[in-house]
Amino acid sequence: MSGLKRLLGVRDREFFDLFEAAGANAVRAAELLDRLVATYPDEAHLGGEIRDREHDGDRIAHEIIDRLNHTFVTPIDREDILALTSALDDIVDFTEEVADYLGLYRIEAPMLQASELTRVLLAATRQVAAAIPHIRSAKDIRAFTVETHRLENDGDRIVRGAIAALFERGIDPMFVIRWKDIFERLEDAIDSCERAANVLESIVIKNA
Amino acid sequence: MSGLKRLLGVRDREFFDLFEAAGANAVRAAELLDRLVATYPDEAHLGGEIRDREHDGDRIAHEIIDRLNHTFVTPIDREDILALTSALDDIVDFTEEVADYLGLYRIEAPMLQASELTRVLLAATRQVAAAIPHIRSAKDIRAFTVETHRLENDGDRIVRGAIAALFERGIDPMFVIRWKDIFERLEDAIDSCERAANVLESIVIKNA
Amino acid sequence: MSGLKRLLGVRDREFFDLFEAAGANAVRAAELLDRLVATYPDEAHLGGEIRDREHDGDRIAHEIIDRLNHTFVTPIDREDILALTSALDDIVDFTEEVADYLGLYRIEAPMLQASELTRVLLAATRQVAAAIPHIRSAKDIRAFTVETHRLENDGDRIVRGAIAALFERGIDPMFVIRWKDIFERLEDAIDSCERAANVLESIVIKNA
Repeated sequence: MSGLKRLLGVRDREFFDLFEAAGANAVRAAELLDRLVATYPDEAHLGGEIRDREHDGDRIAHEIIDRLNHTFVTPIDREDILALTSALDDIVDFTEEVADYLGLYRIEAPMLQASELTRVLLAATRQVAAAIPHIRSAKDIRAFTVETHRLENDGDRIVRGAIAALFERGIDPMFVIRWKDIFERLEDAIDSCERAANVLESIVIKNA
Repeated sequence: MSGLKRLLGVRDREFFDLFEAAGANAVRAAELLDRLVATYPDEAHLGGEIRDREHDGDRIAHEIIDRLNHTFVTPIDREDILALTSALDDIVDFTEEVADYLGLYRIEAPMLQASELTRVLLAATRQVAAAIPHIRSAKDIRAFTVETHRLENDGDRIVRGAIAALFERGIDPMFVIRWKDIFERLEDAIDSCERAANVLESIVIKNA
Repeated sequence: MSGLKRLLGVRDREFFDLFEAAGANAVRAAELLDRLVATYPDEAHLGGEIRDREHDGDRIAHEIIDRLNHTFVTPIDREDILALTSALDDIVDFTEEVADYLGLYRIEAPMLQASELTRVLLAATRQVAAAIPHIRSAKDIRAFTVETHRLENDGDRIVRGAIAALFERGIDPMFVIRWKDIFERLEDAIDSCERAANVLESIVIKNA
């Protein structure tokens, strides 16, 4: 193996390692949010741990972009590297925003649908994280993306039901403002999982 | 004509056909929303037909991306294909969201400005759909894009007037929450038409 | 110097000139908003001047895209030109939206945090505008981007405090709806500065 080839090989592995780290970090953030919501407000300190995951995610994204800027030949298309980095970063950002809103909005007890949605988000991040290692060998990941889409549809249905419930009661506008925001952010986090899955599928197809 | 050239020719036509299908689908969705709002709530069943258009739009977008991933040489720049696909998909997504909100938010009678905006949206989707066939031959489409910008300005003016009206009354916060969301989504749909028109103009200029 | 080279040189300068014009325009818009908010409602006419900046920004962005579509070889990557144009345009768009909301939402007296945020936004636009000329020679701009990130963190902290204050009072939902929107738009404007700074850093690193 030539020196150049070996160098490229190292660079390749580093991109893949960083994506896997970002995926694992997203799963960890989703686990923490799921537990924060399920036990709220008993384990409110978990909010700080989710913020740490958000900072870790930023660091990983920054390192990927930095490497990309210094790398001439990349193992996968530059635009796919950027799109995947951005989607994985968004998952954790939105997850952290949900945790943050619980405190900022002085939520006393989470609505039932919030727990259902954190469970969907956790399942979707696990699908994404499980699919990432397969892009090294461009292995078929359709099972993961199909399941992510199914989860996104599930999340969509739950959010619609939750919003409808808010407007049915429709008594307290402050309640509606708070929860509409939280549900929309949970939906954004789950959508980001779907976006990540779509990029992963593109990468695999192009390199198959 | 060589086999390769003919193959490329077929691929080209298929991309163009798919964009035209997406444009026609956006017009159909906008027509249905315009009628749904104008007759609301008498023809509430049209919401289901708009949802079907949204699914069709998803299918078309998916087919374009899939072809793009399997195609090495594309008739127009890859990033333009992606940007146009995304803009056309967004038009229908936002259109469907508006229809959805009418039910979810338990709207009883649409505000007058909602009808004005669905008419603007319909006119804008027609401009976009009429411009799409011209990218095959890179013909000048400025007349369509100028008219789309004019419509977007119109829409903007109507939304601003509608929001001002909401805050003038300012009696019922639940009313404001509902309608602000609906007007913003209508504006997003019209903005997506302008975005599609801008990409179409870029494509034509680059290939002129 | 060959004719082609000279031609490219002219084109290069024109892209850089346009970016500097966009940066200066963003600073001017932020100055006007800062004064509008600090004196509100005494100098409400400044809203019109901010709208003029928004139109100027649109014109500059349009000229950049137009040149890009007509240029085969660009001094910096096409996607970076697009990303920088879009980030600079967004700064002014969000700045104008904030000015607009003050009137539309019939604000009587700005909350204290609004002034704090317009000061942060002004400082951030100045960092971005000061960094732009350095991309001509790919000079190190880390000092500017580090300061922009610091300002973005500052802005984030102020917005969180402001939102928390809104929900603590929590008396008048209409007050919450208005100010939540204004704070979020100010945050979007500051985030766009950070996005611009990130693209500038990418450009410099790639061309160093």
